[in-house]
Amino acid sequence: MMEKPDTRSTNLTWHAGHVSRADRERVSGQRGVTIWLTGLSGSGKSTIAVGVEQELIQRGYLAYVLDGDNIRHGLNRNLGFSPADRAENIRRIGEVAKLFADAGVIVLTSFISPYRADRDAVRALLPMGDFVEAYISATVETCESRDVKGLYAKARAGQIPEFTGISAPYEAPEAPELVLDTNRQSVVESVSQVVVYLERKGYLQAPAGQATARG
Amino acid sequence: MMEKPDTRSTNLTWHAGHVSRADRERVSGQRGVTIWLTGLSGSGKSTIAVGVEQELIQRGYLAYVLDGDNIRHGLNRNLGFSPADRAENIRRIGEVAKLFADAGVIVLTSFISPYRADRDAVRALLPMGDFVEAYISATVETCESRDVKGLYAKARAGQIPEFTGISAPYEAPEAPELVLDTNRQSVVESVSQVVVYLERKGYLQAPAGQATARG
Repeated sequence: MMEKPDTRSTNLTWHAGHVSRADRERVSGQRGVTIWLTGLSGSGKSTIAVGVEQELIQRGYLAYVLDGDNIRHGLNRNLGFSPADRAENIRRIGEVAKLFADAGVIVLTSFISPYRADRDAVRALLPMGDFVEAYISATVETCESRDVKGLYAKARAGQIPEFTGISAPYEAPEAPELVLDTNRQSVVESVSQVVVYLERKGYLQAPAGQATARG
Repeated sequence: MMEKPDTRSTNLTWHAGHVSRADRERVSGQRGVTIWLTGLSGSGKSTIAVGVEQELIQRGYLAYVLDGDNIRHGLNRNLGFSPADRAENIRRIGEVAKLFADAGVIVLTSFISPYRADRDAVRALLPMGDFVEAYISATVETCESRDVKGLYAKARAGQIPEFTGISAPYEAPEAPELVLDTNRQSVVESVSQVVVYLERKGYLQAPAGQATARG
């Protein structure tokens, strides 16, 4: 049963003043950060994002994936696929990722995000150290041979106009923080590479359970 | 010093499959929720939002405030004040709040949000129980007598067109989950009222430090 204390009797220690990001990070035992996964369709972005999320949650860290499922049908459902709308799509995702990182959450974004300028704009938006660009590197041939969703077949048949890697460009990152070569390494290896990066760079301090004395 | 384990030697227990919201909530020891504060300029929304955030953080819960500062200058900086833009402003905030609640965070939104239809649209967007409408109730006279930012004086002088409560309507909620009457109660009482509501409804389970065994 929940306790039902009288409103007025609650012993508030509240004083005016903003909560700092450091305060939130003491609670979560981690540093907020955006891991921006970029790469061709079929390169493994979503699988790796979900894998990292799962590994972090198992270790007691709070992680969250932004992807087509929860963005294109929600926040960005009023955007199409024109160049302007594509840029606005990435801008909004960047702004949301910035808020999550500020809140102390480790957010993983999983979008093809083919244009360097759009990704660099997001990098510029976020405080230094909050943006980790992870290039999910796989050749078109590798991705096409997987073709889990049958999209490459449709693109080759001309049924999908401006398909990245076939009929539209993909601009690989020039200096990403991470390169995950999924031509050669397994999903587990890629997931591990991201988690190890977060450990080494100090994003993972102590799981929430061990972060501070509370209660 | 950080440990520097070899990537390949990390003992991953990862298996394919999505992380559920319940998994994230076990880590954070709380249920994600949106507390939607609505009321006139000067009614006390931001002060209460920041107070609740601070109280929750002190107790070891992860809370985050969305307000004009981090939304109007970020995600919604390409929106003006036309009726369509105002509706889109609230829609985007609702979509972002939905993501935060899904991530397991307690999010407090602090916006006048004067139109019932816009707020109801956000309510309809979120899963049942994720949207808590908190009406920050204060008369125009009370708010005008505070006039911390001098906005009411400017509005009366005709310098701010369509100022809510003076020259534009405010539609009070019909069935909000919470009514905080700041004509009569102090900030501490209002903050307490929100926190007690969250306790009683089971949003606060155990602070992260006591939620589950970890590590």
